[in-house]
Amino acid sequence: MADFEPNCPLPLQYDRIVMAHGGGGRLMQQLLDTLVRPVFRNPVLDQNHDSAVVEINGTRLAFTTDSYVVKPLFFPGGDIGKLAVCGTLNDLAMSGAKPLYLTCSLIIEEGLPAADLQRILESMQQAASEAGVLIVTGDTKTVDRGKGDGLYINTAGIGLIGEQVNVNPSAIRSGDSIIVNSDLARHGIAVMLEREGMNFEHRIESDCADLSGLVQELLQNGIEIHCLRDLTRGGLASALIELASASRYEFELGESALPVREDVRAACDILGFDPLYIANEGCFALFVPESQTEAALAVLRRHPLGQQSLAIGRVKSACSQGRVILQTPIGVGRVLDLFSGEQLPRIC
Amino acid sequence: MADFEPNCPLPLQYDRIVMAHGGGGRLMQQLLDTLVRPVFRNPVLDQNHDSAVVEINGTRLAFTTDSYVVKPLFFPGGDIGKLAVCGTLNDLAMSGAKPLYLTCSLIIEEGLPAADLQRILESMQQAASEAGVLIVTGDTKTVDRGKGDGLYINTAGIGLIGEQVNVNPSAIRSGDSIIVNSDLARHGIAVMLEREGMNFEHRIESDCADLSGLVQELLQNGIEIHCLRDLTRGGLASALIELASASRYEFELGESALPVREDVRAACDILGFDPLYIANEGCFALFVPESQTEAALAVLRRHPLGQQSLAIGRVKSACSQGRVILQTPIGVGRVLDLFSGEQLPRIC
Repeated sequence: MADFEPNCPLPLQYDRIVMAHGGGGRLMQQLLDTLVRPVFRNPVLDQNHDSAVVEINGTRLAFTTDSYVVKPLFFPGGDIGKLAVCGTLNDLAMSGAKPLYLTCSLIIEEGLPAADLQRILESMQQAASEAGVLIVTGDTKTVDRGKGDGLYINTAGIGLIGEQVNVNPSAIRSGDSIIVNSDLARHGIAVMLEREGMNFEHRIESDCADLSGLVQELLQNGIEIHCLRDLTRGGLASALIELASASRYEFELGESALPVREDVRAACDILGFDPLYIANEGCFALFVPESQTEAALAVLRRHPLGQQSLAIGRVKSACSQGRVILQTPIGVGRVLDLFSGEQLPRIC
Repeated sequence: MADFEPNCPLPLQYDRIVMAHGGGGRLMQQLLDTLVRPVFRNPVLDQNHDSAVVEINGTRLAFTTDSYVVKPLFFPGGDIGKLAVCGTLNDLAMSGAKPLYLTCSLIIEEGLPAADLQRILESMQQAASEAGVLIVTGDTKTVDRGKGDGLYINTAGIGLIGEQVNVNPSAIRSGDSIIVNSDLARHGIAVMLEREGMNFEHRIESDCADLSGLVQELLQNGIEIHCLRDLTRGGLASALIELASASRYEFELGESALPVREDVRAACDILGFDPLYIANEGCFALFVPESQTEAALAVLRRHPLGQQSLAIGRVKSACSQGRVILQTPIGVGRVLDLFSGEQLPRIC
């Protein structure tokens, strides 16, 4: 704040938007915390969850939205359409909701081949259909050639939350185990390699997938889920730092336990990225009481999207600011910090 | 179809998207009918209404989405933020729903002044607050400089539909009166004049407004609403042609009854536009049984947004394709047809 001219009321570090304001890191948090949330402030928004949870006539619903601006539109393991459906299904699932209905709003650049649009819509329908949800309404806008990067898609979604379900950052407790269902960093690396035209011998594919079925399995098997968060923009590190801050606990992770495939790690080394900050689109962090760790892992490992599930850390003591400590193999603890958000734009 | 190569499966007139595919006219209908709806086909989507109506645990909800790409971002009578809130509130209201919750998803171009963003968010919050709805969740993406035209906004919304309410194109009946609440064509002309830098002595302002309060007044006063449609992209003519086609009735309008302000008509003449095809953002067409015409007009005229309300036509006999006839002052009937959609892009 001290950097600002007295006549500038904006509590932002920059007086213009920069790419990092959408990168999932520190600058995005700053934009949201200082500009967006103060304007819209209300108790539902202030839940700071992947979905808003609202109650209508006694029924609890999750309600969420995401716009997708990934570049390129097609990448190994998916396309913008599959991403737009799975991403929004996952946001609903992270509130413990069973997804019901989606919207589809298209902003199309003049000149987009109609065949590409058709392929993307079919990809959306396939992902929706596999999840048992309906795309019930939509909107179509066109923008001039040179704008819009071919296609941007917004999907909003509604899901139903069961009576006993309370999946929320505020339910995190000391002693909870932190579990991930999959290896890390495949989505961001797959998109980045495709964008840069770097073809490896064995192509790295995005992990883009609908996680709502996996979450329903956990709930149906009586797993007491304290919190869930999908590890999208900003990756595992940013998601956990946000949750530690919201819940005001210290989380401890074992670095040697973190699952990153060798080819993904090699690509990260070449591109100069830390896999902990790279976006995933089929991976969540799950918080359960320590006593339920084995039961949760057993349920997860029976599902195709959870076969590699493992516990990567735990919630330690309460801590006024909240923080995430990474225990390195040589026994030294390192505090993880938010990146500015510039490292991987336009991956979702 | 005959124009297509045998190996081209696309039932579209163009193999690439053109601006008119988002213009609210014939080409947009073609895109939706031949590409989008066949892929997503399901009974809720096939309602072809401004919102999807879904039932969850016995409660009927309206669910809708719209992306806003208006250029310029600020125009007389509003801005993209006010438009994004009012437009989605109106889509919910057109299903007879009382709006409850909105989302706000931002696609921001690198370089947008933060002060402009703040002003737009405050405008959204003011419109939401006046309507008594909460903006409960959102998303922020950034795109590279040169893309995105400053800002695109998507809003999705949920509204609650009362038990006795059935506002739907399929409820239109022979003999119904067709009523509009306001004079026509102000929004599109205000945006176009601003974009072209044509300042008239008395500025024409957009009619951008939230109509949900007006609709609730009608319902609370026992008016039996058969159908409602806001007269956005494509204007009065396109909306009525769509409804005539959906309900399979012939509608008759009296040309001399159509309310267009003198300054708006003059601007249309200069710009070469027909006011019947110009977008409104605070104007609807209301269908009520003939016997309720006067009662409906009385309720509407008591409300600030309905003081100019008047009956402009009526539903005549059933008609296999549906059509709209404009009776000219010299007693000749003209069948209205959809425009291609090229005349006024980027006005919402």
